[in-house]
Amino acid sequence: MPNKKICKVAVIGGGTGTFMVLSALKEYRLDLTAIVSMADDGGSTGTLRDQYGVLPPGDVRRALVALSESSEILRELFNYRFGGGDLDGHSFGNIFLSALEKLTGNFASAVSEASKILNIKGGVLPVTLDNVRLYAKLADGKILKGEANIDIPRTKIRAKIKKIWLEPKARINPEAKSAILAADLIVIGPGDLYTSLIPNLIVGGIPEAVKKSKAKKVFVCNLMTKFGETQGFLAEDFVAELEKYLSRGVLDFVIFNNKKPPQAVLARYKKEGAEFVEPPVVKHPMFDKINPQYILADLLDDGPLIRHNPRQKLAKVLTRLL
Amino acid sequence: MPNKKICKVAVIGGGTGTFMVLSALKEYRLDLTAIVSMADDGGSTGTLRDQYGVLPPGDVRRALVALSESSEILRELFNYRFGGGDLDGHSFGNIFLSALEKLTGNFASAVSEASKILNIKGGVLPVTLDNVRLYAKLADGKILKGEANIDIPRTKIRAKIKKIWLEPKARINPEAKSAILAADLIVIGPGDLYTSLIPNLIVGGIPEAVKKSKAKKVFVCNLMTKFGETQGFLAEDFVAELEKYLSRGVLDFVIFNNKKPPQAVLARYKKEGAEFVEPPVVKHPMFDKINPQYILADLLDDGPLIRHNPRQKLAKVLTRLL
Repeated sequence: MPNKKICKVAVIGGGTGTFMVLSALKEYRLDLTAIVSMADDGGSTGTLRDQYGVLPPGDVRRALVALSESSEILRELFNYRFGGGDLDGHSFGNIFLSALEKLTGNFASAVSEASKILNIKGGVLPVTLDNVRLYAKLADGKILKGEANIDIPRTKIRAKIKKIWLEPKARINPEAKSAILAADLIVIGPGDLYTSLIPNLIVGGIPEAVKKSKAKKVFVCNLMTKFGETQGFLAEDFVAELEKYLSRGVLDFVIFNNKKPPQAVLARYKKEGAEFVEPPVVKHPMFDKINPQYILADLLDDGPLIRHNPRQKLAKVLTRLL
Repeated sequence: MPNKKICKVAVIGGGTGTFMVLSALKEYRLDLTAIVSMADDGGSTGTLRDQYGVLPPGDVRRALVALSESSEILRELFNYRFGGGDLDGHSFGNIFLSALEKLTGNFASAVSEASKILNIKGGVLPVTLDNVRLYAKLADGKILKGEANIDIPRTKIRAKIKKIWLEPKARINPEAKSAILAADLIVIGPGDLYTSLIPNLIVGGIPEAVKKSKAKKVFVCNLMTKFGETQGFLAEDFVAELEKYLSRGVLDFVIFNNKKPPQAVLARYKKEGAEFVEPPVVKHPMFDKINPQYILADLLDDGPLIRHNPRQKLAKVLTRLL
């Protein structure tokens, strides 16, 4: 179909969920843009932020690798992590982006230069270029500072997250705004709700741009709840929470998995406080009147981990919406 | 001259002297190969060797940058050095090569992959792929271990270096051997005699390959003596010392500078124990009978440092030999 218009797809998120969606959609003839969270402050990323005052490279790195059409070895190199010594725990790609940022004085230039070196298909855009930290207020009034403190799995149960925000206030990266406005399809998720997805939606200008865009807007719901973030969540709770930050009626579709993993696998996850998200049993109360429309499909990957099957299953459902 | 044969030039050395020669010769239509010392164990390179068991990346990095036809920013990135924090003092290019070596398990692959990424003109070859350390025996019988201990400028005078060697014994990198045998011109130097140049010549197989090669063999003599290494050296002493390791009669040409720097500049260098190498006043005793032929020329760069002028002066003298 050489004359068919190439559709523009913007994927909003961070972490492994976004990596998976990007890797799968890369196989299609699409104009792909990843818009990634800039709230990470744990591990190698956190150390580089603290020691060099750079912006968080981790989520950008993962998206770059997902979209890279370079040699396998170069992509592996970007994810390579040193063990021991001065560089203990640092991922090479993080060091790469931070050195480029120090050299150019500018994270956007660093990402753009790295995109060339990695020969990426599409684009990777930080959701904001402001240096921000993620905060969470819990139901008991306690305030958590830093993505790493919110994300770290807890053995002790803690109160539900009531609200998250960024300090200082973040403004949308103008290039991310353009990509959202130009998109035919916007994909949000899957990913950790409070530490990978919503950190994008609390950037000033993002909800407005998503609302204004003529794109079809899709949320790919998580397969499992996450202890400390979304324990006890029903399928509808994920949607309601996202809509709280995005505003009601903005999402056109939500994609749920309806294939339950084997009991033995679920039992293993249960030990970490993660439970299967049952697909919604009833239609949305005002189905056919207001958004979103629910799409239920078997999205489950084979294998020992409970993951979406990105290539054979999820990408097919997503591209069918175009 | 589209049909003229492209001459093969092998540059043997390490450090800034080799960087300079490579940068200058890159501007010519030549098939350039840098063969670089693998004895470095100071600074960032030394730390990486100690902590990760990798081969020394420093000299390879400098040669890669010299031959890179990539963007200015990528070349700058490779030489970028972190200040403070976990990565204090590490050059990005060293980290890059070490991560690639850890990933591929193989320094030769790391260099070859980095050569692609940096889009280098010609080739960079480690003189050996063996993990070796440089040793020096002084006139007073004292033995120094490690290139960094031999190279570090001393405030206290020490006995003359009588002999240097590598432990364990190093074998020539087969690719370096091929490049030497195929060369039309072999350039050695300029550079620190005992810590950049001769460390290549004490690799088993190098003197034999250089002797066997039909290339014209040229030594570019240093402009200045170096305290702790070559203090008190006359021009002829540099040649004699090199011939000691390479064998007499192997060098076809030695290029000396005959332009003296201004007194004020020399006075500054004298404080660090470095003195001008006067060009040889007499011809070689057996001139026209055995090698080498002496070439005297103004090779001096303008500017505050006593350096060869690589582009306007040295490269012209060198390429005239082809």
